[in-house]
Amino acid sequence: MKNVLVINCGSSSLKYQLINMENEEVLAKGLFERIAIPGSKLTHEPEGREKFKIEKDVKNHTEAIALVLEALTDKDHGVIKDASEIYAIGHRVVQGGVKYPESVVITDEVKKDIEKYSDLAPLHNPANLMGIEAVEKAMPGVPNVAAFDTSFGMSMPEKAYKYAIPNEYYENYHIRRYGFHGTSHMYVSQEAIKFAGLDKDTARVIVCHLGNGASISASVGGKCIDSSMGLTPLEGLIMGTRSGDIDPAIVQYICNKENKSVDEVLDILNKKSGVLGMSGGVSSDFRDIENAEADGNNLAKVALEAFRYRIIKYVGAYVAAMGGVDALCFTAGVGENDKITRQIVGNALGFIGAKVDEEANNVRGKRTMISTPDSKVKIMLMPTNEELAIARDTYRLAKK
Amino acid sequence: MKNVLVINCGSSSLKYQLINMENEEVLAKGLFERIAIPGSKLTHEPEGREKFKIEKDVKNHTEAIALVLEALTDKDHGVIKDASEIYAIGHRVVQGGVKYPESVVITDEVKKDIEKYSDLAPLHNPANLMGIEAVEKAMPGVPNVAAFDTSFGMSMPEKAYKYAIPNEYYENYHIRRYGFHGTSHMYVSQEAIKFAGLDKDTARVIVCHLGNGASISASVGGKCIDSSMGLTPLEGLIMGTRSGDIDPAIVQYICNKENKSVDEVLDILNKKSGVLGMSGGVSSDFRDIENAEADGNNLAKVALEAFRYRIIKYVGAYVAAMGGVDALCFTAGVGENDKITRQIVGNALGFIGAKVDEEANNVRGKRTMISTPDSKVKIMLMPTNEELAIARDTYRLAKK
Repeated sequence: MKNVLVINCGSSSLKYQLINMENEEVLAKGLFERIAIPGSKLTHEPEGREKFKIEKDVKNHTEAIALVLEALTDKDHGVIKDASEIYAIGHRVVQGGVKYPESVVITDEVKKDIEKYSDLAPLHNPANLMGIEAVEKAMPGVPNVAAFDTSFGMSMPEKAYKYAIPNEYYENYHIRRYGFHGTSHMYVSQEAIKFAGLDKDTARVIVCHLGNGASISASVGGKCIDSSMGLTPLEGLIMGTRSGDIDPAIVQYICNKENKSVDEVLDILNKKSGVLGMSGGVSSDFRDIENAEADGNNLAKVALEAFRYRIIKYVGAYVAAMGGVDALCFTAGVGENDKITRQIVGNALGFIGAKVDEEANNVRGKRTMISTPDSKVKIMLMPTNEELAIARDTYRLAKK
Repeated sequence: MKNVLVINCGSSSLKYQLINMENEEVLAKGLFERIAIPGSKLTHEPEGREKFKIEKDVKNHTEAIALVLEALTDKDHGVIKDASEIYAIGHRVVQGGVKYPESVVITDEVKKDIEKYSDLAPLHNPANLMGIEAVEKAMPGVPNVAAFDTSFGMSMPEKAYKYAIPNEYYENYHIRRYGFHGTSHMYVSQEAIKFAGLDKDTARVIVCHLGNGASISASVGGKCIDSSMGLTPLEGLIMGTRSGDIDPAIVQYICNKENKSVDEVLDILNKKSGVLGMSGGVSSDFRDIENAEADGNNLAKVALEAFRYRIIKYVGAYVAAMGGVDALCFTAGVGENDKITRQIVGNALGFIGAKVDEEANNVRGKRTMISTPDSKVKIMLMPTNEELAIARDTYRLAKK
């Protein structure tokens, strides 16, 4: 009875995994889509067996959770006998503010804080809270744990997290660099240290989390010292649809040129920019951009070059910040599948003796050392596993 | 008769230097303040003699230029017999768009372009144009040359100058990275190559122009490949009053929290941020910030740390972009006077064998190699001289 259910709630979706913590194996996973929207659908995948779908409209997350529990305990498709076999539930929560540098058992106070920090994550925290409350109703008495996307970034020093804006904005509104994808960066950096046999107290690790959202972190001895995402997940690398870093004056310039509100321009920077915007609208999917490049589309080519160039600059910045680097890791969709990006970025550190092994790098989605044996930097593909990281924290905290 | 007059016009000011191009010596320099504002004042400094002031209200830049010419040819304070001893005039112009990757002899077309590009530099280009037209009236027939602050940045590759925003904004409004302080970066990088005896075709040089405005550039063989200032001089390093890089979502957040317009927020980011804002209002002057730090002001301490940390990250980014670096140069007010910043930034490259010589670094404002003899990177203090760089271009082009 050491199963942990990990939940990631969006405003109309609910992703879950049930993990047996004795062996860290996934028993089942699934996705509930269109919650509170006509056409609700649950896709449930018991490990090693066929997935099955339930199409049944649900009014809210509480009803959705009830159906998930039914699926998990179903006579034919289920993986556990009843809900009492769930030891604890771990919830992904995007914004934990400065108060939560680590995962925490959810109490009324924690729920109030999650609501309070909604201001900094208006799209995510309210949905995360809905998921928590739905589970509390469906499974009273079972411990819930919150794993915050921002916790990993809380070890950054002031010189890294403070913006050069009037200090009152930090004091009044907590405007600072938070760093997101924290669970992924923490998991990958910890696994990298073990995989490469590095000293866990001093290892300098850079993690490139490259998906449709992309971010990069630097950590020393497992403690984050800098991260590319800032107050929001907009800052930093070029992403599928997000601009990443720009001159802030561009916001003003577009507002005035196009007679748009600041909210409209930020919507464009979040949803219509990145490689989608740079490529002139080809796609936000990097595979489509690569195909367009292969077909001779010059805008797509520049978008890919700029995407990789920005990563190289961040890697260089963090190498200088740490005075060197022991491990460079690639993870998430693009990081785990795009060998060209790994090769170009890894070899860009040739000036400190890093070298990608072309043959080893010819791999997808599998934990692999992709640097040459004599490379001065251990370069690796390290698949991320946020659910497992959340489950580990949940299990550890619920046991106490 | 090889004297070049270099002019830098602001909306109510006019700075000038008269330089003898046979030996590149300054004959006189001066500053006209409060043009078209009651209390106009000219401070004129003939080289090696006492400065003198003329307080006389002038209505416009044309009247100001006439007084400058009077001062230059004055029987007692002058340095030339008459205006015919001025061979050509060089004007600093901030924004030259993509059309002017080099300095150019001013024609009607050039003037029209300077006006056109005012849109991208509304505070500067109109004033620069006023200066040009004033000189044309005062000294008809003498060639005028425009040296653009943006020319040096025009050699950047697309991957460096393009933002990850919808491509139409680049097409329609020329929103791209321009890079400013270009004349300074060009001058310092060229002088650094000579001073360090590097190969002029392959030398990889990073220039940290650290003044109240601060920017950093990377160049290979004298050609800029990246620069920290972007569409405007707001992006990049932390400055006296400018924020440099921030999450663009911060603009929206402050707009909405404080019910401010985007123009008001950008005004704050340009004029009330940087070390002034971070320090809680201590000062925009780095000397005051250092004094406050010495007095135990923690906000001032963090501001200085963040200022230096940002420089280190940019230096690291550019080292990675170039695959190494041969020379690292410090220039402008802070770069030429603040040995601690030079030491911290230079030694941050210790991981590639760079080392600052503490004794050599104990210097101000003087061209000095400040790295140890065995340092793998030549680190230097290289005073900038934008006027001389403009005068050289002006003389060369006017001769043709």
